[in-house]
Amino acid sequence: MAVYTEVSDDDLARFIADFDLGAVLSSKGIAEGVENTNYLIRTERGPFILTLYEKRVERRDLPFFLGLMQHLSARGVPCPTPVETRSGALLSELAGRPAAIITFLEGMWRRRPEPYHCAELGRALATMHAASADFGMTRPNTLGVNAWRPLFAESANSAGEVLPGLAEEVAHSLDRLEANWPEDLPVGTIHADLFPDNVFFLGRKLSGLIDFYFACTDALAYDVAICLNAWCFEPDLAFNITKARALLSGYSEIRPFTDAEFDALPLLAEGAAMRFLLTRLHDWLRVPAGALVTPKDPAEYLRRVRFHQGITSASDYGLDR
Amino acid sequence: MAVYTEVSDDDLARFIADFDLGAVLSSKGIAEGVENTNYLIRTERGPFILTLYEKRVERRDLPFFLGLMQHLSARGVPCPTPVETRSGALLSELAGRPAAIITFLEGMWRRRPEPYHCAELGRALATMHAASADFGMTRPNTLGVNAWRPLFAESANSAGEVLPGLAEEVAHSLDRLEANWPEDLPVGTIHADLFPDNVFFLGRKLSGLIDFYFACTDALAYDVAICLNAWCFEPDLAFNITKARALLSGYSEIRPFTDAEFDALPLLAEGAAMRFLLTRLHDWLRVPAGALVTPKDPAEYLRRVRFHQGITSASDYGLDR
Repeated sequence: MAVYTEVSDDDLARFIADFDLGAVLSSKGIAEGVENTNYLIRTERGPFILTLYEKRVERRDLPFFLGLMQHLSARGVPCPTPVETRSGALLSELAGRPAAIITFLEGMWRRRPEPYHCAELGRALATMHAASADFGMTRPNTLGVNAWRPLFAESANSAGEVLPGLAEEVAHSLDRLEANWPEDLPVGTIHADLFPDNVFFLGRKLSGLIDFYFACTDALAYDVAICLNAWCFEPDLAFNITKARALLSGYSEIRPFTDAEFDALPLLAEGAAMRFLLTRLHDWLRVPAGALVTPKDPAEYLRRVRFHQGITSASDYGLDR
Repeated sequence: MAVYTEVSDDDLARFIADFDLGAVLSSKGIAEGVENTNYLIRTERGPFILTLYEKRVERRDLPFFLGLMQHLSARGVPCPTPVETRSGALLSELAGRPAAIITFLEGMWRRRPEPYHCAELGRALATMHAASADFGMTRPNTLGVNAWRPLFAESANSAGEVLPGLAEEVAHSLDRLEANWPEDLPVGTIHADLFPDNVFFLGRKLSGLIDFYFACTDALAYDVAICLNAWCFEPDLAFNITKARALLSGYSEIRPFTDAEFDALPLLAEGAAMRFLLTRLHDWLRVPAGALVTPKDPAEYLRRVRFHQGITSASDYGLDR
């Protein structure tokens, strides 16, 4: 939620001259994306996002992320697309950092999504999965099931400070998840972080999916499981089956679930809750004193882990086989 | 440099419905202005700035600031202007804070202004002073000469930590400034904070003056003295007489200096340097541990105070009587 890297006007003008975008008319650092520096710029061709990639994004992953956006956008998925330089490059350098110009998408994210937003989301996610089928690049999920135990090890000794018994409960769930994690599900390119703040709407219509910087190659249904966690719980953490049914049926309109996916969904959903529990726990225990950014409470995701443990069939999420 | 207040999409939609601006198409928190929360929004009518006034701005001062922008803008001064609600109000409320919609100005501020930027600035400042002559409202300068000693008293005991001997040097300068401060100069509405980041350019042409939230009623030449300090010193703190001459002659093209203003300029410039020395010293000694915002070094302004003490005539700034 901060501008990390300041860009001088002369550097920006030189940078933009490599694109066929005319002159820069304005530039504002925007409080969007915690990983990168983003400016909303206006050039003679209209509004664009200028992103400078900070150290939390691996430079070697950038061709995957930018290539994916370009691939999806060319297939009609509403997402930002990198603008090529005059010489055809997607990635340049500015202020000592890798940098790209990305198209600007109109729309606003919904802080309190309604069921019809969830249905739109489901359709868009399935469309994205279908459109990425012929995307030629892959990237391992560095926050997938195999990453959870080592990630947890960094916080296990302090987990009890957050909630008594948390370490034992996580260890027990990890045993279960690792022993039963399905290996035979349809795999493709997943967004892996499709929370409400990464989905724009104009009125009732979805206008864009953004922030592909966690995208990777993994089970498609795991992406659905992340969305179930991110979109279908109320502020009091009650599960909203109306929203889940809307999300799942929207998805299956475009890409029907396989039987294996149907069977695996409760475990995938528990795993997705575990993934966010673990990264939040990690960040929670490492907040610098006086930091302006309040870390998100990991306990919210423990509640979700427990909820999914009690689910015996995807039909409890409102999905008909 | 942060978004302080989050606004929900529903609250924003309700707020915007009071204006004749159509629907909101996008909204981005921008890292601009340290005192207020700013969003760059796009509605069906184009881009606008949404400002929520945080506690460092006094609510009772808002009609002055907004009225001034409206007054200046109507007289052709390139500055943002508040958009009226359907019922003609300039100020509304959003997320529990006073809030206004302000027109968006294109342009970029110059991190390294050239002499021709200084000439443009001088002309724009004089134009603003002339245009405010018939502005009916007044606001005392709460950071004027009479405020400096009480402000200094809050930091005097710790000033030596910043620089040995600082307290004595400031006290000596304050004695001089208070004893000699001119009371008979032409008075009007001044911007009082016209640093480079508050002045936009498109190419060589000045496109806007922004951030009127320190504006007040005081000696017009004191505003010029602030700009001399803010625009005419190099990063190594050397005075650049070419820039000063451009600024002062640009100003006097539109509004010639009186003899009293000419005579007072060195003292006004020392006072302006003292004003920023004191507020920076105050902030420097009160940085919260772990704060993300680096306070500005007060010593830069001590160097300027000393420089102006050595000036005997405004002709040393490049101004011909």
